[in-house]
Amino acid sequence: MEPKRQTKTNAAERLETAFANELAQVNVIIVERMQSPVGMIPDLASHLVRAGGKRLRPLITLATADLAGYEGDAHYKLAATVEFIHSATLLHDDIVDGSPMRRGKPAANTVWGNSASVLVGDFLFARAFSLMVETERLRVLDILAGASSIIAEGEVRQLAAIANLNMSEAEYMQIIEAKTAELFASAARVSAVIADLPQEQELALDRYGRELGLAFQLVDDALDYAGSAAKLGKAVGDDFREGKITMPVAKAMQAANTDEQKFWKETFSKPTRTDTDLNEAMRLITKHDAVRTTLDQARVHTANAKTALQIFAPGKTRTLLCDVCDFVVERSF
Amino acid sequence: MEPKRQTKTNAAERLETAFANELAQVNVIIVERMQSPVGMIPDLASHLVRAGGKRLRPLITLATADLAGYEGDAHYKLAATVEFIHSATLLHDDIVDGSPMRRGKPAANTVWGNSASVLVGDFLFARAFSLMVETERLRVLDILAGASSIIAEGEVRQLAAIANLNMSEAEYMQIIEAKTAELFASAARVSAVIADLPQEQELALDRYGRELGLAFQLVDDALDYAGSAAKLGKAVGDDFREGKITMPVAKAMQAANTDEQKFWKETFSKPTRTDTDLNEAMRLITKHDAVRTTLDQARVHTANAKTALQIFAPGKTRTLLCDVCDFVVERSF
Repeated sequence: MEPKRQTKTNAAERLETAFANELAQVNVIIVERMQSPVGMIPDLASHLVRAGGKRLRPLITLATADLAGYEGDAHYKLAATVEFIHSATLLHDDIVDGSPMRRGKPAANTVWGNSASVLVGDFLFARAFSLMVETERLRVLDILAGASSIIAEGEVRQLAAIANLNMSEAEYMQIIEAKTAELFASAARVSAVIADLPQEQELALDRYGRELGLAFQLVDDALDYAGSAAKLGKAVGDDFREGKITMPVAKAMQAANTDEQKFWKETFSKPTRTDTDLNEAMRLITKHDAVRTTLDQARVHTANAKTALQIFAPGKTRTLLCDVCDFVVERSF
Repeated sequence: MEPKRQTKTNAAERLETAFANELAQVNVIIVERMQSPVGMIPDLASHLVRAGGKRLRPLITLATADLAGYEGDAHYKLAATVEFIHSATLLHDDIVDGSPMRRGKPAANTVWGNSASVLVGDFLFARAFSLMVETERLRVLDILAGASSIIAEGEVRQLAAIANLNMSEAEYMQIIEAKTAELFASAARVSAVIADLPQEQELALDRYGRELGLAFQLVDDALDYAGSAAKLGKAVGDDFREGKITMPVAKAMQAANTDEQKFWKETFSKPTRTDTDLNEAMRLITKHDAVRTTLDQARVHTANAKTALQIFAPGKTRTLLCDVCDFVVERSF
């Protein structure tokens, strides 16, 4: 009997149900714009874009546009834009990470190769820009183009920080704010722009998306040491094997005694890490309660996200957007 | 004594000299916009962007803007945009090609690895979009975003066509029109847009860039079988080793007798090709005069490019843009 989990999982489903018609329109645009006479492009793109993604980012654009009182139809294209940027990033991430799985299916680069993943990612990224140009809103273009370079900066920063044993929590938060939270922030912020809301509301939506994105990534990092492979669609310990120092490890390293420091140093200095290494890492993470404190930190950010929305009048959509914050922390995948 | 080569090489130099002040402004923007607090980004980007590129594409934007009578300053940012898109494409191409050299220096991915090249390419691409958004011209954005997805399509089409022994010349021309000529076409076309020229002139500049780009790529392909490694900055036969069927090979295969057909089939079916294979390929290419006929074909396109410019009044810039066509065919690098 898991009544709490049941209810909270339903928050994401309720959001999807509430915006089902709008999401259907976004999906039409997504499928239409990933077409190309070059067959490998729709094959590879649909493997990824249809692969059971939660469409969380486009749903945020749709719901915040509703919250902003927007009555036009630019938000459909912007929601599709956000999903395309996200998908392009995932394709390129799979190359960087070398992870063989993505959302429970073989990653695109393991099926089509790295070259195709690089190029189809570029294609999706270019199509994202074409889509947003069609909305004819220069500020929206500015926000999403700026977000795209910040995302790339965050990814490079993470790459450069691999095996950096001195990574501070603050530095780690900077990385995930850039690589993950910036797109969530933009997905929400553009709704205020198209609805011509004043700056205060625009910054509130940016804040909502940013805090939600930070929480999302912290939970993702925690699940890599605590989740179930079946539900995650990727193996537990992927980040560890790739030598990525995420928040649970940063916390465990910070609390480490001399022997433990030696373990972390040796383990992350090696080119590869074994299952025995992973077991020891998980033991130390458990010992220092690093998954729980990472999740606690995520809850601080979802609380901030909910607070940011208080500037808007209460109502069904505001409640859904708040409930999704809880879902992001309580999800087990 | 090579008076002819001397004179013709000078056409590119004359273009650069004529627009030296403008190019200096573009270079300031390029250096400024590749900066990032993440040190690996400017390191890698400057390795590429400063690596002695000819800045041919930005020079085309600068010269066509002058030809179009444009008097604002948006062309500086657009020239930088075009160079950034080109540089991002090169970074991703190096991963696809697996070629260890680029412009006589180690390719970025051999120094920093594939992951950094993917991500810094994404960064440059995103910065290109931010730059063009600042020009506040939606039609320019539409043209350059569209060009970016066509370039990616061309690259994927070439990837899918590797070792396709039935590649026709027409199919090959489609690939290079997308992957190379589209950016040249856009680099010229945007000048007409910012100068508010009528459609006829806009299409003429598109045509000029497109035909020049086709010639440029055909010459590039010919030089891979006829150039000097020292001047090319890459090894002769790179395309061949990568299993890329370019125009000289397509022509030699088309003229092949039964034994030669067998050679081509066996050679391109193998995972790798030896120096002995390359020697035999070059013998067959010479036998069928395939480099010369490829260069002849390039001259047809430069003639078309020059014809397209006849719609504009004669003058120094028009002459320079025509002379550059000859340079592109006569260059030995």
